Amino acid sequence: MPRQITAFSNPLIKRVRGLRDKRHRREERLFLAEGLRILAEAEEAGTLPQMLFFARESGDHPIVRRLSAKVEGQGGDVIETSRDILHKLSGKDNPQAVLGVYRQFDTALSRVDRAASGIWLVAQAMRDPGNLGTMLRTGDAVGAGGLILIDDTVDPFSVEAVRASMGAMFTQRIAQARWPDFIDWLRSGDGQLVGLSLDSSVDYRLPNYVAPTFLLVGNEAQGLPSDYAAACDLRVKIPMLGKADSLNAAISCAVMAYQVLGQRLP
Amino acid sequence: MPRQITAFSNPLIKRVRGLRDKRHRREERLFLAEGLRILAEAEEAGTLPQMLFFARESGDHPIVRRLSAKVEGQGGDVIETSRDILHKLSGKDNPQAVLGVYRQFDTALSRVDRAASGIWLVAQAMRDPGNLGTMLRTGDAVGAGGLILIDDTVDPFSVEAVRASMGAMFTQRIAQARWPDFIDWLRSGDGQLVGLSLDSSVDYRLPNYVAPTFLLVGNEAQGLPSDYAAACDLRVKIPMLGKADSLNAAISCAVMAYQVLGQRLP
Repeated sequence: MPRQITAFSNPLIKRVRGLRDKRHRREERLFLAEGLRILAEAEEAGTLPQMLFFARESGDHPIVRRLSAKVEGQGGDVIETSRDILHKLSGKDNPQAVLGVYRQFDTALSRVDRAASGIWLVAQAMRDPGNLGTMLRTGDAVGAGGLILIDDTVDPFSVEAVRASMGAMFTQRIAQARWPDFIDWLRSGDGQLVGLSLDSSVDYRLPNYVAPTFLLVGNEAQGLPSDYAAACDLRVKIPMLGKADSLNAAISCAVMAYQVLGQRLP
Repeated sequence: MPRQITAFSNPLIKRVRGLRDKRHRREERLFLAEGLRILAEAEEAGTLPQMLFFARESGDHPIVRRLSAKVEGQGGDVIETSRDILHKLSGKDNPQAVLGVYRQFDTALSRVDRAASGIWLVAQAMRDPGNLGTMLRTGDAVGAGGLILIDDTVDPFSVEAVRASMGAMFTQRIAQARWPDFIDWLRSGDGQLVGLSLDSSVDYRLPNYVAPTFLLVGNEAQGLPSDYAAACDLRVKIPMLGKADSLNAAISCAVMAYQVLGQRLP
């Protein structure tokens, strides 16, 4: 049976609320995901939360009942609570009916099996959690293996990144590495590294991409450092006809990824 | 000469801060844009702010000096202030050096000249200001004429939308209309209406798109209503290989827009 927590002062509530903060997430090796849709995607991908919070009014929802039973079955904690407390936990005015606390995945590069997919997304120094989550979602759609985060990026386990990923957080492999370690790893096996660079004169529609293709996009404001671009097997650019000099990083990556996918679909 | 305001209680500071709120923006027919890059893009597009605020430390920046002279030259208000006040106005921890207050554009559909471009973006019931701004930015990149907002959408003049547009706010035409009025207007001239729909069996790479092409994407959560999809000349889908059932709306739109552009580029 779920236990009930209705007091804001409950230490567990304080602890879970603390997971909105990167330092606490890192210390606890946990993260938050909200909403029936995302929790159901996680379940389908074989991932259950360590703790499941749900609003009293949602206790009869079939997904909530099923998740509750599964989480209890594996010894996790199921907590029935109020919408006010869910609001406090999620920080949203209109909180979702459920919230899960998940164990962080191991993001070591060594866990990436490059043979698992023909497309991998690579983001360097990405700052915006929405872009990061959107890239995970795009990766899911194009059948990418996952997202490799280079250098100092926003935390992939942040509430905003998880929300923007719409569940792809649980289906895409996420890895984190410094640039030299990534290049060493990449060159230890097959892989075509394709950098998106404004300085390139090669239209992204021209090359034949070779699997596994690693699509590298740079930081939102600065783009790719020139020495990173120089280390790529190919540098390509997306034509831009307008006044502005760049596309949003997640958009560029998606346009590229669909170009690569398009070469491989019937 | 710029005048100085250093008191938070100054009525103009209160009034400008109020523009972060939709109701005040609508009443005043004004909106905020922040940052040298965006203000310079606006200037290049021939749009100057009614009021220009800059941080004392930035007064010697050549763009700030040029903008100040131009704004004063057209009878606008130039205000030197503190970073603390800019922080209060922008709501950002790390405020930009400049902030402009602009007059809202007329968003009547009748002001859209469809012959001005071969691509137009159309978003129905878009809720996320970041998506809206990103679509404007994508529109700029693909040489679209502008963005037509259908039914109840997030305010295109919101601070978040303007920020995400990275200046494309000032180069793309923005129009707002209810669906029946949009369809009447569309059918009064040339135009191929292409709806992105998960229910379609037509791969987006197959059709020959005819200019002016109007690319219609639906609400982030619901997608296009079926009667809206039925009114389109073509319904297409973007292949998705993953577990999730949709791409981010701004991403779908960009992938589509680059497909259309790709058919027309050399």
